[in-house]
Amino acid sequence: MSDVMHRALDLLRQLPTVGEKTATRLLHYILSAPPEYGRALGRTLAEVVDKVRPCPVCGNLSELEPCELCRDERRDRSLLCVVEKVADLIAIEASGAYRGLYHVLGGVLSPLDGRGPEQLRIRQLLERLPGEFVEVILATGAGVEGEATALYLKQKIEPLGLRVSRIASGVPVGGELEYVDRSTINRALNGRRSMD
Amino acid sequence: MSDVMHRALDLLRQLPTVGEKTATRLLHYILSAPPEYGRALGRTLAEVVDKVRPCPVCGNLSELEPCELCRDERRDRSLLCVVEKVADLIAIEASGAYRGLYHVLGGVLSPLDGRGPEQLRIRQLLERLPGEFVEVILATGAGVEGEATALYLKQKIEPLGLRVSRIASGVPVGGELEYVDRSTINRALNGRRSMD
Repeated sequence: MSDVMHRALDLLRQLPTVGEKTATRLLHYILSAPPEYGRALGRTLAEVVDKVRPCPVCGNLSELEPCELCRDERRDRSLLCVVEKVADLIAIEASGAYRGLYHVLGGVLSPLDGRGPEQLRIRQLLERLPGEFVEVILATGAGVEGEATALYLKQKIEPLGLRVSRIASGVPVGGELEYVDRSTINRALNGRRSMD
Repeated sequence: MSDVMHRALDLLRQLPTVGEKTATRLLHYILSAPPEYGRALGRTLAEVVDKVRPCPVCGNLSELEPCELCRDERRDRSLLCVVEKVADLIAIEASGAYRGLYHVLGGVLSPLDGRGPEQLRIRQLLERLPGEFVEVILATGAGVEGEATALYLKQKIEPLGLRVSRIASGVPVGGELEYVDRSTINRALNGRRSMD
């Protein structure tokens, strides 16, 4: 195999979920597609890396500083939703269910992996809270680390006089109870709400 | 999301096995890695498309014409192995079990998909056969279309006075009979060899 193909495979293999076989498959697809596709993909990936940066305010990825969401005057500036990563922000935006601002932590607290409060964007979160915000919605994941991170943040935020809420956790929409794991059933029962 | 991120996602989503979620995941990985990674990936993909072409002799992908394998004087020029695609050639090379030359068909005969002999590199195969070759090994897949393609090629090649062989098909190494499908068991039984 030629040198440039080897280099391309080595680089593709660094991507998440891409092993040797997938890298080969991706490279062959790129080589069998019209050359303009590979050129556009290459040019755009180099461009995205040079243009897109984390927003200094919220941590969202954007070409603008601050990002489109932070600038958008139509958004509700009394609400702040705290998420682990940009992908979570995108998922919430796609749902259309939220019109406030965001704060991306860059992960969850995980002492075993050496991720303490200093490794996340928690200082920046606490610094931006005083002012217009009324409620902070903690939307970290529903696993052990997401819950621990939410609890930690609640203790830091409440003294600032803000309302702190946690996204609901339970049986997913369309989920058959039969196939839902025990912890989720437990969570769904404990989080039950009266039907008014 | 910014314009260049949208363009990058659209291009990534065209890759095989990459849907919307995987494209987002890949892009976020590229954006969170050191910027030199994304730049190198972009540059290399554009470079590979411009430099690498199918070898005019065998169909292998290479920067050279003819390719490294066709040029290699240490290879056995009496043996030709016919494969469907470059990935198959790479798999055979990786096995280390073969030291002859190759011919990449670019697919298998598939009348339903409109792939007849003219859509594959069969004319080029028949044109390069007269001369040094003694044996042609048909290494198309063991499915219906691979078998039909091998049969078609056998009928075209035998009149040229060359030996035609077919790679063995049966229970894979390490395969438990219990879990092997019926057609493979059938094939393995019919292809049994005496233990001398």
